[in-house]
Amino acid sequence: MMKKDVIQVALLGLGTVGNGVYKVMKLQEPEMARKLGAVLKIKRILVRDLEKAAKKVDDPSVLTNDWQEIIQDDSIDIVIEVMGGLEPAGTYIKEALRAGKNVVTANKDLIAVRGGELLDAAADHQVDLLFEAAVAGGIPIINPLKNSLSANYISEVMGIVNGTTNFILSKMTEEGMDYSQALAIATELGYAEADPTADVEGHDAGRKMAIMASIAFHSRVTFQDVYTEGITKITEQDIAYAKELGWVIKLLGVVKNTPEGVEARVHPMLLPKSHPLATVSGSYNAVFVHGDAVDDVMFYGRGAGEMPTASAVMGDVFEVAKNIACGITGSTHCGCYKKLPIKKIDDIVSRYFLRMEVEDKPGVLATVASVLGNNSVSIAQVVQKATSGDDAEIVVITDRVRERHLKDALLTFEHMSIIKSVSALIRVYG
Amino acid sequence: MMKKDVIQVALLGLGTVGNGVYKVMKLQEPEMARKLGAVLKIKRILVRDLEKAAKKVDDPSVLTNDWQEIIQDDSIDIVIEVMGGLEPAGTYIKEALRAGKNVVTANKDLIAVRGGELLDAAADHQVDLLFEAAVAGGIPIINPLKNSLSANYISEVMGIVNGTTNFILSKMTEEGMDYSQALAIATELGYAEADPTADVEGHDAGRKMAIMASIAFHSRVTFQDVYTEGITKITEQDIAYAKELGWVIKLLGVVKNTPEGVEARVHPMLLPKSHPLATVSGSYNAVFVHGDAVDDVMFYGRGAGEMPTASAVMGDVFEVAKNIACGITGSTHCGCYKKLPIKKIDDIVSRYFLRMEVEDKPGVLATVASVLGNNSVSIAQVVQKATSGDDAEIVVITDRVRERHLKDALLTFEHMSIIKSVSALIRVYG
Repeated sequence: MMKKDVIQVALLGLGTVGNGVYKVMKLQEPEMARKLGAVLKIKRILVRDLEKAAKKVDDPSVLTNDWQEIIQDDSIDIVIEVMGGLEPAGTYIKEALRAGKNVVTANKDLIAVRGGELLDAAADHQVDLLFEAAVAGGIPIINPLKNSLSANYISEVMGIVNGTTNFILSKMTEEGMDYSQALAIATELGYAEADPTADVEGHDAGRKMAIMASIAFHSRVTFQDVYTEGITKITEQDIAYAKELGWVIKLLGVVKNTPEGVEARVHPMLLPKSHPLATVSGSYNAVFVHGDAVDDVMFYGRGAGEMPTASAVMGDVFEVAKNIACGITGSTHCGCYKKLPIKKIDDIVSRYFLRMEVEDKPGVLATVASVLGNNSVSIAQVVQKATSGDDAEIVVITDRVRERHLKDALLTFEHMSIIKSVSALIRVYG
Repeated sequence: MMKKDVIQVALLGLGTVGNGVYKVMKLQEPEMARKLGAVLKIKRILVRDLEKAAKKVDDPSVLTNDWQEIIQDDSIDIVIEVMGGLEPAGTYIKEALRAGKNVVTANKDLIAVRGGELLDAAADHQVDLLFEAAVAGGIPIINPLKNSLSANYISEVMGIVNGTTNFILSKMTEEGMDYSQALAIATELGYAEADPTADVEGHDAGRKMAIMASIAFHSRVTFQDVYTEGITKITEQDIAYAKELGWVIKLLGVVKNTPEGVEARVHPMLLPKSHPLATVSGSYNAVFVHGDAVDDVMFYGRGAGEMPTASAVMGDVFEVAKNIACGITGSTHCGCYKKLPIKKIDDIVSRYFLRMEVEDKPGVLATVASVLGNNSVSIAQVVQKATSGDDAEIVVITDRVRERHLKDALLTFEHMSIIKSVSALIRVYG
């Protein structure tokens, strides 16, 4: 193995994360040689607008808008992809791996869909492909799952892995705002994008959960396998009722390895106030892992942002640099040596929070209870309140039941005139 | 590099942690080959009492009470030391490293005192020495500090790293017990040892903080460098006053990298109720890290116990096994390339909680305030309460001040007849 004094790096993208990576590289320069035994040097930065990018860097001669200048440069050892999106990032990464270049990426969209294929390509060409920054920003979670916790059978990973929705729900909970007010503030503060769909519909969280499930369970789970349900239907009433009954509403990603297959889902969930994830508020993220030996562990921190995400990217770059120094790049293969089936959402077993508008008549609660009972749904907590005029509201928290049974009960409610509407159905922890 | 199909392991000790390691090894057997590309096999287990140990293992022929049978066996690749204590563990580890054997240990006492020397020996003989289990049981913290967070300048590590004291303080806080009642329950439940000194005086936490400081700051910090103060003087009154003012009392380990040197200390501390460490209760541990890029991250989980500690030991064993497979053992050297000075406790800057018994006379509070003011101590919060007879109690929370100034004020109080005693002095977060 050949010892390199200088490891050459190409950066693809100079947006928020790219800029952070550039800054961390400068900050670490004085100690890099002692931490790595080599110096990292930025050889090229791929950008769209050369003029705009020139203001962000010390030496504009490293800038290029031509991918060929990078892929054809044999002196480049590591490609850091922080452009985001499926294309052209996917093509660039594949080409880089085939050209024998190591790749570090923060691209959850891509890894959640094409992770297996790209890891195989990395192994085929004896190079590394690392993606710590794709999940939960600065929080170390991929590396602990792959290494520190590797002597466990991990049965569950549960996380608050989207800062935008956690910020919105925190605002709704702490300040009694409705969804659209809270979203407006998130947008104003830059926590929500102009089109917030990927965040508020749970797609972003779904991608991160797919990646963590694949690593934790050693079986490929892609974004398409994840059931996603967002927070757009959560109302301030739901939050108020939940609070009254001792719960907090969070957008949770849940993946479980059960004997019947892998559960992979993202949806709002009522958590008990005492659960460690219940106190994770604002733009923070946290991931809770259960393993047979370690029991419960939690990882908490900033799930996004220029510098925290750059911390994760650069942690990976340091690892690759050490592997280059030892001559062992390409030794970490895709760990998905199992093919576990994916469970349908109708087959999961959960507790549920149901809020219904009903006619304010004697016997309505009894009718509701009997329909639930006939469908194997038992009730753990119930509140009935008169609202306005002839209407009342019933809020039920059920015991654990298979989702299809609950849905059967809802079908029956649809045909009953005393049930005006089922205005909320939210899963409950436990 | 030679590919090994079987990696042979010797286990030193079959107590709580040793038993856990044995169990995890059995549990992982079916998947080991796929996770590691090799099978781990227990060749020898060193025990004191062969007869007693025979009941704990499937094949008693692996048991031995003779260290020579292990150290002279060239087929043993990894020695797992879970005996604890400075000797003979220290001698065994040193001999194993010199004989070219990789070592995984859970021994915080030893690493906190002789870590640097042993890491150097490992490097000299091209073998690994890993010790994730020495800090915070099952929680992955050493590996994230060394790898995932390596692109940060870490300025602070703060942790609840002793489950015994956290259990005692949680009992005192939640159930209003006094120290001796809570200690009795901890002893009864097996959370406290017959001689609880190492836990309740903060020595155990001090060892863990020394290890984390060395890794986080790249400068050797040993147990002797850590200022330790335990929880034996904390009273239910302190906890009640703290609660009234919005704080929780925890035994915290704090290490900081400041321009004036490294602060390394373990002592009780008032934390605001909203701090993520404030909600860590019972026997749980948590470590909070601040880095320039990642900002705040926290790691939470079980800080002790048979299986969680075994999870950490076996995570290290898996890492060594992969390094053996790649032929790169011995590539992770001691990272202490700096020699930072250690700051004296008198030089730290902190906020303080002071509880004083005073004569219940007009002007006493004014006198206290003026003594503090004359010593550069300003007051943030104050409560005065009549107690019994002619006495009153004054509780002060100060702003940030250098510890020596506060101690000067206390010296003045000692000579004043209206101040009967200073019954508590506890540092305050912020």
